[in-house]
Amino acid sequence: MTAFTRDRRNQVIRMPERGHYERDDVYPIVDAALVCHVGFVQDGQPFVIPTLHARDGDTLLLHGSSASRLMKYAGAGNPLCITMTLLDGIVLARSVFNHSINYRSAVLFGRGELVTDPDEKLAALERFTERLLPGRWEDARQPNRKELKATAVVAIPLASASAKVRVGPPKDDEDDLALPIWAGVLPLRQVMDAPLADPKLAATVALPGYLRDFVAEQRGE
Amino acid sequence: MTAFTRDRRNQVIRMPERGHYERDDVYPIVDAALVCHVGFVQDGQPFVIPTLHARDGDTLLLHGSSASRLMKYAGAGNPLCITMTLLDGIVLARSVFNHSINYRSAVLFGRGELVTDPDEKLAALERFTERLLPGRWEDARQPNRKELKATAVVAIPLASASAKVRVGPPKDDEDDLALPIWAGVLPLRQVMDAPLADPKLAATVALPGYLRDFVAEQRGE
Repeated sequence: MTAFTRDRRNQVIRMPERGHYERDDVYPIVDAALVCHVGFVQDGQPFVIPTLHARDGDTLLLHGSSASRLMKYAGAGNPLCITMTLLDGIVLARSVFNHSINYRSAVLFGRGELVTDPDEKLAALERFTERLLPGRWEDARQPNRKELKATAVVAIPLASASAKVRVGPPKDDEDDLALPIWAGVLPLRQVMDAPLADPKLAATVALPGYLRDFVAEQRGE
Repeated sequence: MTAFTRDRRNQVIRMPERGHYERDDVYPIVDAALVCHVGFVQDGQPFVIPTLHARDGDTLLLHGSSASRLMKYAGAGNPLCITMTLLDGIVLARSVFNHSINYRSAVLFGRGELVTDPDEKLAALERFTERLLPGRWEDARQPNRKELKATAVVAIPLASASAKVRVGPPKDDEDDLALPIWAGVLPLRQVMDAPLADPKLAATVALPGYLRDFVAEQRGE
């Protein structure tokens, strides 16, 4: 895959060695993050709203209520910035100054348009559902006409993007290395606990195989 | 503590039952999140940048390189929106339409100013460091004059804010409850793994007590 062109918008200025512009660097972060933060402007005021996302090639997809401000605004072609961040650890340096965090973040730019074609909309909703849990779309009760109408899908062809990543141990000044101060990383990661059945679930409904497999994979079992 | 006034900016319109305006509801989310997403506008283009934050009462603090675009822009009194999101689970409803996630998010609004007083700046950096790891400030090598100059701190008195929270099992339509589809929640949480010492750490430097205690607490040991 090709890289995003560097310009004033997506260039990583601080710590440029942490910046990445290849689609192969950016998209795994987009796909690994469950939620994104969508930035938009209304009357000069920035808003940042967390929401679920999905990706179809070079297009980011958002969905929500047809009545929501975010969907209306994002679907109207206004400039958007969509950012997702994964936390990997707390970096403890010998100096306060060099404390940091390990993270992977992606910052995406583009303008959205409402997806109106019912088949495209259904395909997008399948993508969202399968992202939450692979195999879910075929098992769950799929959207009816009323639900489809109540749901807006916005497609954002990505015009520009970059990733910023910090990995590894602290980087202390040479002069600080001999100080008797513990330095290293406290690793962080997201884990999934055992499924909690809906209290209203009939006792006859067992955990389906695709769900058991997914949970086992997430839990490293 | 008192509530934030509801206005067009902070009012939770979609799913209003999930909206909270009390400082007691908003601040625990701010404090529990390690990173925030700062939204600002430049020439009509929104930007959303992840960064660390700290809180001093009704003031949110950001820090970064004095040369960074974010710090310059945030410190210049421009309107900001700062959002943090904690993920608590994937909500699997019987219908695709009612799938959701459990989360806690806070959306904050305000305008920032650069903190120039050296004592205030030091106090802010102590707050950032103690938030990463309680007890760290006293142990680590504190900032020297050059480092203090290279670090910008921005204080943002919070003008408006709200929280949005979803908890609990899926909410399916009455008609769907009898469907033979498993429904429930896949709980998510962030965990800390065992500390990784810097490869450059001298073997004589042991893990300090405050760090051992913090890790044990985070790991529920």
